[in-house]
Amino acid sequence: MKNVYMDHAAATPVRKQVIEAMLPYFDEHFGNPSTIYDMGSKIKQVIEEQRAKVAELIGAKAEEIIFTSSGAEANNLAVKGLALARQKKGKHIIISAIEHHSVLNSARFLERMDFEVTFLPVDEYGLVDPERLSIAMRPETILVSIMHANNEIGTIEPISELSAICRQKGVIFHTDAVATVGNIPVDVNELDVGLLTLSGVSLGAPKGIGALYFRDNLRLMPLIHGGIQEKGRRGGTENVPAIVGLGKASELAAKELSHKADHMRELRDLLVEGVRERIEQIKYTGHPNRRLPGHASFCIEAIEGEALLFMLNQEGIYANTGSACASKALKTSPVLVAIGIRPDLAQGSIVFTLNSSNRAEEIEYVLEKLPFAVQKLRSLSPIWRQKSAA
Amino acid sequence: MKNVYMDHAAATPVRKQVIEAMLPYFDEHFGNPSTIYDMGSKIKQVIEEQRAKVAELIGAKAEEIIFTSSGAEANNLAVKGLALARQKKGKHIIISAIEHHSVLNSARFLERMDFEVTFLPVDEYGLVDPERLSIAMRPETILVSIMHANNEIGTIEPISELSAICRQKGVIFHTDAVATVGNIPVDVNELDVGLLTLSGVSLGAPKGIGALYFRDNLRLMPLIHGGIQEKGRRGGTENVPAIVGLGKASELAAKELSHKADHMRELRDLLVEGVRERIEQIKYTGHPNRRLPGHASFCIEAIEGEALLFMLNQEGIYANTGSACASKALKTSPVLVAIGIRPDLAQGSIVFTLNSSNRAEEIEYVLEKLPFAVQKLRSLSPIWRQKSAA
Repeated sequence: MKNVYMDHAAATPVRKQVIEAMLPYFDEHFGNPSTIYDMGSKIKQVIEEQRAKVAELIGAKAEEIIFTSSGAEANNLAVKGLALARQKKGKHIIISAIEHHSVLNSARFLERMDFEVTFLPVDEYGLVDPERLSIAMRPETILVSIMHANNEIGTIEPISELSAICRQKGVIFHTDAVATVGNIPVDVNELDVGLLTLSGVSLGAPKGIGALYFRDNLRLMPLIHGGIQEKGRRGGTENVPAIVGLGKASELAAKELSHKADHMRELRDLLVEGVRERIEQIKYTGHPNRRLPGHASFCIEAIEGEALLFMLNQEGIYANTGSACASKALKTSPVLVAIGIRPDLAQGSIVFTLNSSNRAEEIEYVLEKLPFAVQKLRSLSPIWRQKSAA
Repeated sequence: MKNVYMDHAAATPVRKQVIEAMLPYFDEHFGNPSTIYDMGSKIKQVIEEQRAKVAELIGAKAEEIIFTSSGAEANNLAVKGLALARQKKGKHIIISAIEHHSVLNSARFLERMDFEVTFLPVDEYGLVDPERLSIAMRPETILVSIMHANNEIGTIEPISELSAICRQKGVIFHTDAVATVGNIPVDVNELDVGLLTLSGVSLGAPKGIGALYFRDNLRLMPLIHGGIQEKGRRGGTENVPAIVGLGKASELAAKELSHKADHMRELRDLLVEGVRERIEQIKYTGHPNRRLPGHASFCIEAIEGEALLFMLNQEGIYANTGSACASKALKTSPVLVAIGIRPDLAQGSIVFTLNSSNRAEEIEYVLEKLPFAVQKLRSLSPIWRQKSAA
């Protein structure tokens, strides 16, 4: 079997219907939406239709959506944009210890701008404790940013409990929902968040497009200063084809979401069960139940995750070790450290992320190849041989 | 005749070959370039090939190119990124009075961060005087940003003379070359700039992609914090299809540039001559010779530019009034004010920007329709009737 792709958190193929929807906007309806003649105003209208579709997927209003070039940009705009616009009210923000680099490094940038940042620890499942958030809050806290779900361990955070604490104190709550939008139902009112980041990655939308939901006409310092596009919150000519792609993908996702989640959950459970049966000394990371439906993550004793990936790659299987961004940047995943995994065990991280295109026979194929690869790598590992001998 | 499009500075249709080059990267080669398996590393390689093509178009090295989501983002990264990374050396920057909003508003942001900004005036043609730049320089000046050419009046600035002054004093020079790259030859070594912004707009590349050239491994505070993509200077998953589009468009532009410029210049001269013959009381704005080859801009007495655009639109002619971004944001163009145009005359601004697809019969068509539209609008203008009666 070739190309068993189970790294959908890193990238997904753009859906055929999405490509078809985008195509006319490259060369036929190519005008600049800021122009005042008919071509421009028609395209402006098309953008507003897409905004409504994206909004509908998350229970928002169209005017609460800002298009960005990625989830990373939306996270930057949320964290830095809100903090810089609101700094007169206070210069303290709170984020979790397992945020995506785009939130984490935005917070570190704010530290340089004389903000104070509290990094909330998580428990062994990666969960943020609302009690701890309560304690960390200060009068000068202006923003709390905690992700909806973590792509490395799959854990879904108790966002509405956390945001309730902020709501009570008039503090803005941001959640990075890149991992959840398109995988589970997401409703900004149920979550009760002020800001929410999404991207096309779980929707089969193209790269190069993301969005930020913002409530109550919140002021944000633009990241990209320029013209009055996106209500003055993001300059630069709108990326019309990609916006159309995100709109179409959102429309499709809204229809298919519950079926997709069921399908992924079923396959994921098959995978997890099979792996646990076939491989000893393995840890299923993240929360056992409160997790993304298509997400399975493990740390395998006496294995290098990268070596395992290469072996699986040779069998046509695509998975990940840690998050896509971290793969090349870091030796040990800060997320796995945060949930208390020993550094040597953290090296053996492997992450499978599914979508609706995956099939049961692909799971069977992985269950056939993975134990063999692990066995082979372990047979080369002095640590494993010592353990086995003991 | 339908669809005589002469607003190429605002938007261009993506070229067929560019679309074809991009298509496989939506659903076939869709992987995340940061992943370590074969799919990821192949795509990483493709990105580096595109970087080399973009670099070649402007005489740079591949490793000196950062991909961004737009020219506006590249301008923000250049101005804010350089200033924030270098602020310990000084907090004074210089920009011209006719910069694009993305440079202008980045500078205004820096003012809030306790930077001082000098806005250099321009002469009646829109030219920055090197003498004036010399005088404006201070020991604490860290950055000068002056655009290569202005999209509203077409004037090409004497960049190498201006950058020589900065070179002498160790000050970084940035130029926004969005209006020139793809329209005239641009060479970063001849211009001797430290930073240069380009976008796909004049190249027939898609929206949503731009690039920043940076010399000498210049440190830049990222605008989008995140992973280690783009040498740590721009986080977020790379927009692979759009990068491939910019690469292909750059490759084509490098081959066709001199022919394209000649063709546009010929048509532009026909247009300008024809307009001057047929319409009285009209001012050709910008420099008569030092200007973009496909650029013709006028201010017409006793006319509202917007009304004229609508009338032309009804005849299938697409032109602009001021810059695309400014169209909806402002009543009077700051560029026209800066070159000393009276506010009432500035209202009558009209800008034609050509590309290689335009034809001589389109110019003839415009020369047929434009004088008629002007005459009709003037016949409704009390100011014009007073003048004519006088």
